[in-house]
Amino acid sequence: MDDKLFLMIPGPTPIPERALLAMAKAPVGHRSSEFAKIMEEVSENLRWLHQTTGDVITLASSGTGAIEAAIVNACSPGDRVLIGANGKFGERWVEVAKVFGLQIELISAPYGQALSTEAFRIALEADTEKTIKAVILTHNETSTGVTNDLETIAGYIRAHGEAVSIVDAVTSLGATNVPVDAWGLDFVGSGSQKAYMIPPGLAFLSVSEKGWKACERSTMPRFYFDLRQYRKALKKNNTPFTTPVNLVYALQVTLQMLKAEGLEPLFNRHAHLRDATRAALRALGLNLFNPDDASASAAITAVLPPSEIPCAKLRSTMKKHFDIVIAGGQGEMESSIVRFGHLGFVSGRDIVTGIAALEGSLHILGYDHFAKGSGVTAALDVLAS
Amino acid sequence: MDDKLFLMIPGPTPIPERALLAMAKAPVGHRSSEFAKIMEEVSENLRWLHQTTGDVITLASSGTGAIEAAIVNACSPGDRVLIGANGKFGERWVEVAKVFGLQIELISAPYGQALSTEAFRIALEADTEKTIKAVILTHNETSTGVTNDLETIAGYIRAHGEAVSIVDAVTSLGATNVPVDAWGLDFVGSGSQKAYMIPPGLAFLSVSEKGWKACERSTMPRFYFDLRQYRKALKKNNTPFTTPVNLVYALQVTLQMLKAEGLEPLFNRHAHLRDATRAALRALGLNLFNPDDASASAAITAVLPPSEIPCAKLRSTMKKHFDIVIAGGQGEMESSIVRFGHLGFVSGRDIVTGIAALEGSLHILGYDHFAKGSGVTAALDVLAS
Repeated sequence: MDDKLFLMIPGPTPIPERALLAMAKAPVGHRSSEFAKIMEEVSENLRWLHQTTGDVITLASSGTGAIEAAIVNACSPGDRVLIGANGKFGERWVEVAKVFGLQIELISAPYGQALSTEAFRIALEADTEKTIKAVILTHNETSTGVTNDLETIAGYIRAHGEAVSIVDAVTSLGATNVPVDAWGLDFVGSGSQKAYMIPPGLAFLSVSEKGWKACERSTMPRFYFDLRQYRKALKKNNTPFTTPVNLVYALQVTLQMLKAEGLEPLFNRHAHLRDATRAALRALGLNLFNPDDASASAAITAVLPPSEIPCAKLRSTMKKHFDIVIAGGQGEMESSIVRFGHLGFVSGRDIVTGIAALEGSLHILGYDHFAKGSGVTAALDVLAS
Repeated sequence: MDDKLFLMIPGPTPIPERALLAMAKAPVGHRSSEFAKIMEEVSENLRWLHQTTGDVITLASSGTGAIEAAIVNACSPGDRVLIGANGKFGERWVEVAKVFGLQIELISAPYGQALSTEAFRIALEADTEKTIKAVILTHNETSTGVTNDLETIAGYIRAHGEAVSIVDAVTSLGATNVPVDAWGLDFVGSGSQKAYMIPPGLAFLSVSEKGWKACERSTMPRFYFDLRQYRKALKKNNTPFTTPVNLVYALQVTLQMLKAEGLEPLFNRHAHLRDATRAALRALGLNLFNPDDASASAAITAVLPPSEIPCAKLRSTMKKHFDIVIAGGQGEMESSIVRFGHLGFVSGRDIVTGIAALEGSLHILGYDHFAKGSGVTAALDVLAS
């Protein structure tokens, strides 16, 4: 049905109507006092969401831009870095580090499994000469729905003392607890089309005081992503280069909404949606790609369709019959899993809807190894709890 | 008056209502077939606007990002480049080239004056060993309202044979003739908040076949701005990283509008608005910062206020009494000039309005060395011609 699509992908996520309408307003000048006033409020609320008293930079780029910015500002060519990779995004940061001439020590885990915190402890403790300059890792691996134990790993990085942490929090920030100051995180990057509930086009990067010291030391050439310029501009509630004013209008609105909801309820809502989704998929007898509840993402749930149903077929059936878009896999799991996003402006109603559409689609595709309504019932039970 | 501001700055420019409303629509996935269909149309129309059969890349960045992308893809560290600078943006590209370790040969002109085409001819002809790898210049210097003679300089670059051209066309593309293929331009960068008539957040970069060969040779590290990735994605009507879907919605609409207007009428409209603005300012006895009509920008007109009226005072009076925002100077001319933007979704009505507001503001500030109505009349005369 035309214009009826509902996205249950890990981004873009659904946008509140008031944020969409906020964008449909003529932009003010990005160097005006009117805009500085908006940026002042937005920056304050970004600090609240990041649980930091430090700086949160706003970039005109995708989330990848934010992580590249962290890497090229924190490191110098030839620096030794420790990278955790257990999915497509972890692999991307390895690629970025290679491009910029860093010496990479890799800690990896198979797609669908969490990174070993012990591996980080051992590698960092072994580095008695403090040659590791940065630890790069993905908090929530969007490609698989696995949340790495950032809190524990951050502790090992702090204990190391020399290395800064560079965290891809693109699908965790705003969906799950990422207390930047409490965990001593140095660079935490995220993107607007995720828990921020606005369209793509902005990226965010918190930088700690230790992070700023690393920026000052770095000899990596950078201009558009030179964070020192952004810090200078931020003090005047501005950006060094033209910022997407209309997206900032929308951000102003959604940050107000998030703040009104509160951090605890926000994280609890996402956890609840995740639990309902997982209970429903299990009730349907499907295999969760990440069966480990402890590392299950609050933002995305990946599931293996019944072996007789190709992922693409399941997705196109959901879309054709129910106007719901779910995501396929990425990287090596491209054709093996489908992913449900439950991130951002999502409520229990959406989960029930998505699960009902999944039940219907499985039936349409001739798969009937589950009691009709069992997925929806399981979701409702969790949501009622 | 609240919400009544009208921007007459060189960007953001006024946005057509239908483009604003196009943004207020839930985004589709950036990897969906629906989005690819939009990108296909947008790419086709971008090629039309650039007058090229080659590739036009869409970046999630400001215009500065597009020029940096051209520089880091076309050049390798240590490369010798020729840069033209006659204003703040020219100076910015010198800064970028320095940051990325290029050997700079500078051709400069004072703020408000055009670059000498002869200086380019001499420098390029003297380079018999073809050590100059790129020529970087600003077509329309936004900070001063001076349009450099790109056509002539492009001819010298073509005659040189080795160097690629990197053109900042941020405020010229779509306002004045930039026939990318006919002039053999290799990299031409621009930004969405200018003649494209949409808010900031997208940048565009056309790349010639010669430009792509330079990208293949370049040893400069780059990832987010690695144009080769964008070219690969473009073939599938996509982008390598998440693109600001809602800005592309708006772009789809405004490119349709520009195409319906046609290139000749589009450029003539801008020339006409420029001529009306200049005639009006002269009728008021004010000094144009660039008195040379041949190099007068079709997008921006800078003027020196009467010596007894500070720029900031004139701008705040225009804003307070008439809800019109004009720009101040930039770089070394920050406090010496004001700038009228007549770029993008601007008609004769806006020029008359702006000039009337200027007359009124001058009177409010006690300046009466002109016949009331003479500015407006001069503008109307040109507009009627």
